[in-house]
Amino acid sequence: MQIRPATDADFEAIWAIFQPIAVAGETYGYDRDISREQAYELWMRGPRVTYVAEREGEVLATYYLKTNQAGPGNHVCNCGYMVAPAARGQGLASDLCRHSQQLAVSLGYRAMQFNFVAVTNTTAVKLWSKLDFQTVGRLPMAFCHPTQGYVDALVMYKWLDCDPLS
Amino acid sequence: MQIRPATDADFEAIWAIFQPIAVAGETYGYDRDISREQAYELWMRGPRVTYVAEREGEVLATYYLKTNQAGPGNHVCNCGYMVAPAARGQGLASDLCRHSQQLAVSLGYRAMQFNFVAVTNTTAVKLWSKLDFQTVGRLPMAFCHPTQGYVDALVMYKWLDCDPLS
Repeated sequence: MQIRPATDADFEAIWAIFQPIAVAGETYGYDRDISREQAYELWMRGPRVTYVAEREGEVLATYYLKTNQAGPGNHVCNCGYMVAPAARGQGLASDLCRHSQQLAVSLGYRAMQFNFVAVTNTTAVKLWSKLDFQTVGRLPMAFCHPTQGYVDALVMYKWLDCDPLS
Repeated sequence: MQIRPATDADFEAIWAIFQPIAVAGETYGYDRDISREQAYELWMRGPRVTYVAEREGEVLATYYLKTNQAGPGNHVCNCGYMVAPAARGQGLASDLCRHSQQLAVSLGYRAMQFNFVAVTNTTAVKLWSKLDFQTVGRLPMAFCHPTQGYVDALVMYKWLDCDPLS
């Protein structure tokens, strides 16, 4: 598997992963009826970098990395990860998250923050915890889940090891 | 004092309040060398609404209100407030915050969230606490203060009374 910067030509594959996740409304703070153009803006243009994980020419997963707050907060980045349904359960999200942490350090970031992890998204909560992210906040009823109604969202945070080679 | 929607003609006065606050780097997640154009984008164009507080034709303070997360998070808004130095200590931030809460409810929001309150900004922390915002998160060393170095930032949150007339 190769993890490499995304190009515009990848966006068709990214959109095929992205759209069903947005429509489901269970994990991301995106409009469920987001357009392809809006998704391109949010995933490809807005972030500082966007990567894809590719195997045998097929894009299986993607992530973005961006600065979470400018100015006094610009040493903390934020990332989002999406994995194609057929490629789940194989550790790709974990691989991408480790990759993004190394990239973050190489870009000069000191910490990584996830702003809006629904408590119902137990896969993500477990994975980020396993990767040493701490739950540093809990937003009461901040996430409106399509079947479970208002549920809490977590803020998860990790101070990064700032030697990318260690 | 009148609190009313900001117009483009107000931006000169807003920028005069905004720029020194950004340059100081003690309270907001904005670049300290932010340009007037970027500030216009962030304060006037990006948010859903922007208001000013005016007395005798003079703009003394301003706030914006925007949706904090789209989709499953779009019932939670975020606001930012800035008061001109000469008008501080008169309760304007409190007035603006109450105004913004009423406006938020009238726009259909259920909660308000402040994402990035430096713990060193004790005036803000005390004020939001007094206005019944809860500290729901603490981001370790997420704020790089110009003289105090890395300090924690708080996430503060309030579920709004959803009857705007009460």
